[in-house]
Amino acid sequence: MKIIITGGAGFLGQRLAAALLRESSLPFSELILADIQQPPTPMEDPRVHCLALDLTRPGAASQLIDRDCGVLFHLAAIVSSHAESDFDLGMQVNFDATRQLLEAARHNAPAMKFVFTSSLAVFGGKLPSIVTDECAVLPQSSYGAQKALCELLINDYTRKGFVDGRVLRLPTISVRPGKPNKAASSFASGIIREPLHGDPSVCPVSPDLALWLSSPGTVVHNFIHAATLPAAQFGSSRTVNLPGISVTIQQMLQALEAVAGKQVRERVRFVPDETINRIVASWPGNFDISRALALGFSVDENFQQIIRAFMHDEMLRAGG
Amino acid sequence: MKIIITGGAGFLGQRLAAALLRESSLPFSELILADIQQPPTPMEDPRVHCLALDLTRPGAASQLIDRDCGVLFHLAAIVSSHAESDFDLGMQVNFDATRQLLEAARHNAPAMKFVFTSSLAVFGGKLPSIVTDECAVLPQSSYGAQKALCELLINDYTRKGFVDGRVLRLPTISVRPGKPNKAASSFASGIIREPLHGDPSVCPVSPDLALWLSSPGTVVHNFIHAATLPAAQFGSSRTVNLPGISVTIQQMLQALEAVAGKQVRERVRFVPDETINRIVASWPGNFDISRALALGFSVDENFQQIIRAFMHDEMLRAGG
Repeated sequence: MKIIITGGAGFLGQRLAAALLRESSLPFSELILADIQQPPTPMEDPRVHCLALDLTRPGAASQLIDRDCGVLFHLAAIVSSHAESDFDLGMQVNFDATRQLLEAARHNAPAMKFVFTSSLAVFGGKLPSIVTDECAVLPQSSYGAQKALCELLINDYTRKGFVDGRVLRLPTISVRPGKPNKAASSFASGIIREPLHGDPSVCPVSPDLALWLSSPGTVVHNFIHAATLPAAQFGSSRTVNLPGISVTIQQMLQALEAVAGKQVRERVRFVPDETINRIVASWPGNFDISRALALGFSVDENFQQIIRAFMHDEMLRAGG
Repeated sequence: MKIIITGGAGFLGQRLAAALLRESSLPFSELILADIQQPPTPMEDPRVHCLALDLTRPGAASQLIDRDCGVLFHLAAIVSSHAESDFDLGMQVNFDATRQLLEAARHNAPAMKFVFTSSLAVFGGKLPSIVTDECAVLPQSSYGAQKALCELLINDYTRKGFVDGRVLRLPTISVRPGKPNKAASSFASGIIREPLHGDPSVCPVSPDLALWLSSPGTVVHNFIHAATLPAAQFGSSRTVNLPGISVTIQQMLQALEAVAGKQVRERVRFVPDETINRIVASWPGNFDISRALALGFSVDENFQQIIRAFMHDEMLRAGG
């Protein structure tokens, strides 16, 4: 059985690959990491193959998915601010490429598991203080709209028996390692990561804005869990609001101070950015996670723990 | 200013065209009726042009929409049972053609009014007894999924300023004139129309199933109203659950008996059809219509009135 990860060069793709190679809960004979540029090998293992592939190219999806494919983790995407500034590119990558992958799965490997990373960005507008599975989506960004389009398509392909879809609405991931990116939520990692590295950081939103957060480790654990869950447990919808914790910017910085000191926290300045704020403030800051927990998905304990896990990972990386 | 109706050969398209030609609330210089087969002229008027056009053909949408186009009523669709049996055709007509029309509008006639007929078939699964605008969609048919895809796209094109979208979720239309079609809801007209014409009719669903109904006259009135409403009144979503009345099959037949007698009603037999029942029973039977009424949309009085209006229309038709 073959597992494929799109967006395999990305931070989550690499981390998921490493977890799959280490864990035994999802056995496989081959692991393919595909991305627009050839992904690095996450660890030396004869089962790993890394592939440069432009998923928007006609035929690319069929080339990737053959009948040995058992699970696809489709992580590749144009991030939120980028999809907002380049609508057509966002549609091509975030929607059309997903549709091509679904078509390839339907015809080459019917009923294979199709694990898709959606986002809380599908929500917007007037929302209850705690968002449930029964809340209508109302995206306030093209990224959110494109993710919501894919959710509908995957649920219908699943209903028709073309694929076995599992759609995970990811919380904002914090703390990401590496460099800032074009996601509107990039600052949610930057305001922790940069100060810990001794660098200044800018927060474009208000201190009292609540974010819905998950650590990278927990979300990767939940990816694998999603692929192992029996189909029948999902009930009438394959879309799950993944668990997260609701934390205000202020609370994030308090946690940073508690873990790393006042001097580190003071490296963050507030410089409002209306474009970023409009997108991020439209996302819900709290969810009812009872269904996700009943399905066995995991949740972080608190934000201090998340910061400590990030520091631990960075130390391991720095140590080689 | 030019008005275009797709699905112009269909019953609602013809009726909308006739209403536009008679009314003055939406002035125009040209009215184009387009359909896969050349639509008949709804009435002699130099402003009317009828066009055979396959909207799934590349370039067809651009050919149809030029900069003089002020309003598009996009009614063309593959109906529910047909879209369920031919998934690919449903995607092409119900989704891809709509996307091509949106692209043509964006580039040829930016911010033109794009009136789209969606459907209560976007809903399904566990629903509250009265559906509100805040309820999540969960289509149980590919037709419903394709309509929901278009809703998302039109809302995002509107948010980006590419078009001025207005999405109407239609109740089941009853009583339609003419012949049965491949809509799962075809019987909702058949059980009234056929007995009135002296013919037997089969009801595939349970007598206590509640349907959410609108007469053709009311829905056409609401199409025109949607095109004249100021954009600002819609608020954060361009999607409106159109008003309807909640009537069980039993109540429909009681109304038929009250209007046309016991003998007419007895022409209806119940022969359960699981495929039809699965689709239709997944649709909600009652909605909160306060937002639609506040926006000025109209609603039928009761089902007896709807039957009488149908008999009146049929008499006029028969009379030439």
